[in-house]
Amino acid sequence: MPGILLCDIIGCMNYKMLIQYEGTRFDGWQKQGNTDNTIQGKIEKVLSRMIDSPVVIHGAGRTDAGVHARGQSANFHLKEWKEPEEIRTYLNTYLPEDIDVVSLTQASERFHSRLNAKSKSYCYRIGTDGYKDVFRRKERYHLGEKLNIKAMKTASEYLLGQHDFKSFCANRRIKKSTVRYLEAIDFQVDRHGVEITYRGNGFLYHMVRILTAVLIEVGQGKRAPIEVKEILEAKDRNLTGAPAPAHGLTLMEITY
Amino acid sequence: MPGILLCDIIGCMNYKMLIQYEGTRFDGWQKQGNTDNTIQGKIEKVLSRMIDSPVVIHGAGRTDAGVHARGQSANFHLKEWKEPEEIRTYLNTYLPEDIDVVSLTQASERFHSRLNAKSKSYCYRIGTDGYKDVFRRKERYHLGEKLNIKAMKTASEYLLGQHDFKSFCANRRIKKSTVRYLEAIDFQVDRHGVEITYRGNGFLYHMVRILTAVLIEVGQGKRAPIEVKEILEAKDRNLTGAPAPAHGLTLMEITY
Repeated sequence: MPGILLCDIIGCMNYKMLIQYEGTRFDGWQKQGNTDNTIQGKIEKVLSRMIDSPVVIHGAGRTDAGVHARGQSANFHLKEWKEPEEIRTYLNTYLPEDIDVVSLTQASERFHSRLNAKSKSYCYRIGTDGYKDVFRRKERYHLGEKLNIKAMKTASEYLLGQHDFKSFCANRRIKKSTVRYLEAIDFQVDRHGVEITYRGNGFLYHMVRILTAVLIEVGQGKRAPIEVKEILEAKDRNLTGAPAPAHGLTLMEITY
Repeated sequence: MPGILLCDIIGCMNYKMLIQYEGTRFDGWQKQGNTDNTIQGKIEKVLSRMIDSPVVIHGAGRTDAGVHARGQSANFHLKEWKEPEEIRTYLNTYLPEDIDVVSLTQASERFHSRLNAKSKSYCYRIGTDGYKDVFRRKERYHLGEKLNIKAMKTASEYLLGQHDFKSFCANRRIKKSTVRYLEAIDFQVDRHGVEITYRGNGFLYHMVRILTAVLIEVGQGKRAPIEVKEILEAKDRNLTGAPAPAHGLTLMEITY
């Protein structure tokens, strides 16, 4: 990866950014081929124009199309020193209104947003009654159906700790390890819905959305909580259904 | 007005709705000529299709283009009884995703959303630091500048009570009374901004946005708080500037 090569240039500058975006109209975080409708692509384009030379940024979480971020983290290298606040202002001037660089600071030379991440947290928002909330319609999955939160909490406990999450990984031909450590699953319930926050050392492709889809089925009474344990142990993606819709998901925080 | 005629038909049904909308892509509440890109127009179109006959709805607040509502109230008459929940479901099925009928109930025969309103409240949201908040960008005016809230509060006190608000009315040729009663102006301050909530018995054309623009000038130190008193007493629209941007404003509640 060109970024890692740049990092090896002695004296090059490494910068870390905290980024927010509403993912609605983007094809996800990660640059793919020639498309530039990705968040990574949009930011790289502005940075490259700023220094008139290609810049590669490394995001901590590769959010899918339609997924949002309140605390995405990314780093990039520049060969020459530039004031962080000057870079941030430049970015926010030229980035579209649905992407914002919240902060930008110098990082240590070896810092890498993805490789150094200790934990990530994602929040999935579900509307469970007849109230749609037009102002949050783009970051909330409006299910419009009551859920048995107690059953969902019981089910979620089987998921905590270190497990092989193969049943919850959308990439069937994955060769790397599908073992991850899930530190916490928190439920925040209000009058109109529930927010499920997942914190772990890493998440597989579509993992949070498949976990959420299964927990919703438990909340609807379509599955017993104990089935989640069975699914987990079976390591079989055929036992889980479609992922929950992308727009309900937000990357909340990366810790280092 | 045809709605009032309908109301006089003995035995006709009167319904009251609570409506939310994100005003961003609409030409305001009120139907104007042949355009149907208004919130009133969108709702009337669906209702008229439902009963295959024209329906007129009466909104409590005529919000401008780009202004939002969390608690708009409107009423309409039908010649024949229809279950309120059935009407609501029909409306929410066919209305665009940025309009939602939160509740719909039968009202007394004489109830009129605008004429019977006792008070209205509007909230104006301002971002006062470098944090843009992409998720609220459509309902928050991102000023990006610190404001002297204490001075703004002092200025706001001159506005409370009954006054002729002619200086704050964008309709220069208004023939009706420009006297209104302003019950409260509340400031809610957080790390990133301020929300100003106005409650009163009625508001003139652009009044909340002109009031906000003047209060912002006070917060920026461009005007002394006492000037607000002078502007009010002068009854001269030439003393106030452009209204604050529409997208920062939300109609919050109508009380009866």
